[in-house]
Amino acid sequence: MHDTRAVDLNCDLGESFGSYVLGLDEEVMQHITSANIACGFHAGDPVTMQKTVNLAVKQGVALGAHPGFPDLLGFGRREMQIAPAEATAYIIYQIGALGAFATAAGGLLQHVKPHGALYNMAAKMPELAQAIVKGISLVDRDLILVALAGSELYRAGKEAGLKVAGEVFADRAYAADGSLVPRGKPGAMIKDPAVAALRVHRMVTEGKVTAITGEEVDVEADTVCIHGDSPDAVLFAGKVKQQLVAAGIEVIPMGRKIATARE
Amino acid sequence: MHDTRAVDLNCDLGESFGSYVLGLDEEVMQHITSANIACGFHAGDPVTMQKTVNLAVKQGVALGAHPGFPDLLGFGRREMQIAPAEATAYIIYQIGALGAFATAAGGLLQHVKPHGALYNMAAKMPELAQAIVKGISLVDRDLILVALAGSELYRAGKEAGLKVAGEVFADRAYAADGSLVPRGKPGAMIKDPAVAALRVHRMVTEGKVTAITGEEVDVEADTVCIHGDSPDAVLFAGKVKQQLVAAGIEVIPMGRKIATARE
Amino acid sequence: MHDTRAVDLNCDLGESFGSYVLGLDEEVMQHITSANIACGFHAGDPVTMQKTVNLAVKQGVALGAHPGFPDLLGFGRREMQIAPAEATAYIIYQIGALGAFATAAGGLLQHVKPHGALYNMAAKMPELAQAIVKGISLVDRDLILVALAGSELYRAGKEAGLKVAGEVFADRAYAADGSLVPRGKPGAMIKDPAVAALRVHRMVTEGKVTAITGEEVDVEADTVCIHGDSPDAVLFAGKVKQQLVAAGIEVIPMGRKIATARE
Amino acid sequence: MHDTRAVDLNCDLGESFGSYVLGLDEEVMQHITSANIACGFHAGDPVTMQKTVNLAVKQGVALGAHPGFPDLLGFGRREMQIAPAEATAYIIYQIGALGAFATAAGGLLQHVKPHGALYNMAAKMPELAQAIVKGISLVDRDLILVALAGSELYRAGKEAGLKVAGEVFADRAYAADGSLVPRGKPGAMIKDPAVAALRVHRMVTEGKVTAITGEEVDVEADTVCIHGDSPDAVLFAGKVKQQLVAAGIEVIPMGRKIATARE
Repeated sequence: MHDTRAVDLNCDLGESFGSYVLGLDEEVMQHITSANIACGFHAGDPVTMQKTVNLAVKQGVALGAHPGFPDLLGFGRREMQIAPAEATAYIIYQIGALGAFATAAGGLLQHVKPHGALYNMAAKMPELAQAIVKGISLVDRDLILVALAGSELYRAGKEAGLKVAGEVFADRAYAADGSLVPRGKPGAMIKDPAVAALRVHRMVTEGKVTAITGEEVDVEADTVCIHGDSPDAVLFAGKVKQQLVAAGIEVIPMGRKIATARE
Repeated sequence: MHDTRAVDLNCDLGESFGSYVLGLDEEVMQHITSANIACGFHAGDPVTMQKTVNLAVKQGVALGAHPGFPDLLGFGRREMQIAPAEATAYIIYQIGALGAFATAAGGLLQHVKPHGALYNMAAKMPELAQAIVKGISLVDRDLILVALAGSELYRAGKEAGLKVAGEVFADRAYAADGSLVPRGKPGAMIKDPAVAALRVHRMVTEGKVTAITGEEVDVEADTVCIHGDSPDAVLFAGKVKQQLVAAGIEVIPMGRKIATARE
Repeated sequence: MHDTRAVDLNCDLGESFGSYVLGLDEEVMQHITSANIACGFHAGDPVTMQKTVNLAVKQGVALGAHPGFPDLLGFGRREMQIAPAEATAYIIYQIGALGAFATAAGGLLQHVKPHGALYNMAAKMPELAQAIVKGISLVDRDLILVALAGSELYRAGKEAGLKVAGEVFADRAYAADGSLVPRGKPGAMIKDPAVAALRVHRMVTEGKVTAITGEEVDVEADTVCIHGDSPDAVLFAGKVKQQLVAAGIEVIPMGRKIATARE
Repeated sequence: MHDTRAVDLNCDLGESFGSYVLGLDEEVMQHITSANIACGFHAGDPVTMQKTVNLAVKQGVALGAHPGFPDLLGFGRREMQIAPAEATAYIIYQIGALGAFATAAGGLLQHVKPHGALYNMAAKMPELAQAIVKGISLVDRDLILVALAGSELYRAGKEAGLKVAGEVFADRAYAADGSLVPRGKPGAMIKDPAVAALRVHRMVTEGKVTAITGEEVDVEADTVCIHGDSPDAVLFAGKVKQQLVAAGIEVIPMGRKIATARE
């Protein structure tokens, strides 16, 4: 059973690389409770990782690894056909690298959220999903896996006995089957933060969201995906959070939400 | 004080990358007690790291991180002018990545030995040496740093209170100042394993080696660098080990040797 | 119409990377007439490219670019979903880089053969095939495209008015539809060089090969793919060439064969 | 002898990488006559290169290769000890890659300007300078080398019979020996575009600039380095150009300036 009065807000962070700066990390960190930090494969580099982890620890934001494909050029958004053994090893490597910065900062890893094409492929491919879950399990069975409820990744995590946080999206429309409406399609993006906050509120308290075609869809809203790649996105995040809090939803790291829910 | 009847044999391993195979890891692992495993910067990749760590754990060989410059093309052998903060972050990243495979295999990291140009530069540059030591200290103060006695890296490790293992070379001639005679020079390489074993024996038991110019040089021989990149190298390693054992030297991981020495 | 008394033998070369050596380039170059040289994406690096180009020019072997996916870790053998505009740009880049070494060596590029997963995907995906063809066309319309007859890549090249060389395989069994029997399957590999030479002879002179299931398959045999990654492969290549020559087939670069055929 | 009534304005462009956007390429291109385009080693990628070359051709800006160290993480600003043969091969590779995009766009390469640490190291190291010059010479002896007058790179280019364009800096103070005052030092940066334009005017017409310590320094001002990495930099560039034109200096690509000067 889930705590229906609390939710986590997560955001992808630490996506800069060397001289290339991406994302308004400091700004968005004020609105979130969990950070998904890039691990040097699709984005991020050791210096950026250390800086981001230190900032998150200072701000009290929970730490998560955000492992991706080894494709910096494509920002991990291009599908790659990797073998399950490769996926497992890539996950272990990236969790380990980020975990060392957590340790160095006196912090602790809370969760793992695969990035981009890896997240999307793992939602549909059981073998890949199991390979990712295996990687997490081998390193630390206390890590929370972030996944879309109903996805193969979610299922694989549950089957392996991992803690799994169901992720929902504040700024995206849902299809009747619970998947996200692709970005290009009309109505795919929720642009009004008030609307987004209302939808998130209902996802958290009732576990339901209305699909773009009108159907009621069951969701599991342990954590809400927020963006920080532009001033508008940060503003949007701040407003969603504000309205959730105003409506009596507690915004807390997923680790606390899940712990509470399962006690 | 050092245990003068025991020594560790270390070797660089896990240097393959994807389809590129390098080193006779399985063969040389039978002769060594500590493995320096590449961490994906100058060599190695996640799949190779996992395979190498698993093999070492199975064979009872102690695990070490072998961090290098981010220069796969140059195999980490080219000097790069990196900032101290970069060095610290690169060390943390690589130790973390390898450490996760150790954890996944039910093993534990024993030591850290910087690779190639990073090792050589850190021997001479105090700032770089301190940056490396800082990286190790931030992740795990129980890790042993491998360094040339008398080098800046050795000094930095000791000053920071780390355990430091003095490294000697079985197949290399020494100059009067304790540095290695550069490979190109006549007499730089010791090719006869019997001669090498005798030299190592004296380095371990007396802490002395005769320089190429005849002087007696003080060394600290906690661990001996061995090579596994060719059948000849593996044969050489096997013979050196055999003769050390025959001469009553115990061949044990540096962690045990140092522990023994300091009790 | 094709010259039925001549054929080209091509081989992938220059696949080393930095300290990582792959392939017996010098040995196999004695048996081939066209070299497909890796361009630094899936394999190869500038120093290796220059060395390989210089060697080929010296040996009178015709030069070809062997562009692949930007995936050194996967050796270009893993499928990547890249956009057509990316494929075009990757092809231009790699042809340009290799072409400069050809110029530097006083040679000329003869052909382009996509590598690994890029070759296989382009055989089936018209958009990707056209993107590759566009890249070649933009740089130099005199370059010959190497493709499997009947593939989308072959078709795209012909439609764009490029010269296209049909490739056949000496050591592989064919399915009834003209595709190669996957490596894992029984009978997929032709191991006897005498049998391989006989099959190639017939493919060249008659344009036919017998499928593993007994049917007669039409092929276009302008160039035969040969391997040089092991001593056995080199031996095999030498024997196939010897027997083709003995049977009256002239072994010449594809540029000359195609020119002859079309006069 | 040099044309003392004309000068070229050059700027580093095409420094984006995948999703990472850097520089205001479109804006600054309106003020410059020569573009130094990154070639995928320290910055840039094939898609970015194609886009940048196409834009430059459309705007009538002359094309130049901007080769750097293979160090994307350090943006080519970190010194790397590479062998001369490596430098030669890296230069050939990068010129070839960029040249292919020039060809694809119906344009022609005009010049080569090494980037960052490679430029700075080649200014002082004769062997490296000669290796770079060798690379250019092997590909195309009509390419103009951009170098600081008085540097080893300038000298090596002249000795090899290449066309060399002397580069000056609009926004930097000079030391008495003709080198640039390091960025950190007081007075190192010229921030007033009117002052910068006056200085450039004198460098072009008289071949002289006043050092920060008061001495007169001889310079060779074929091309002026301009920046486009911020709105302020673009504004600065526009104003410098405007004032040069107002003072009767013609702003033309270095290829035309050098051709004119040498007729």
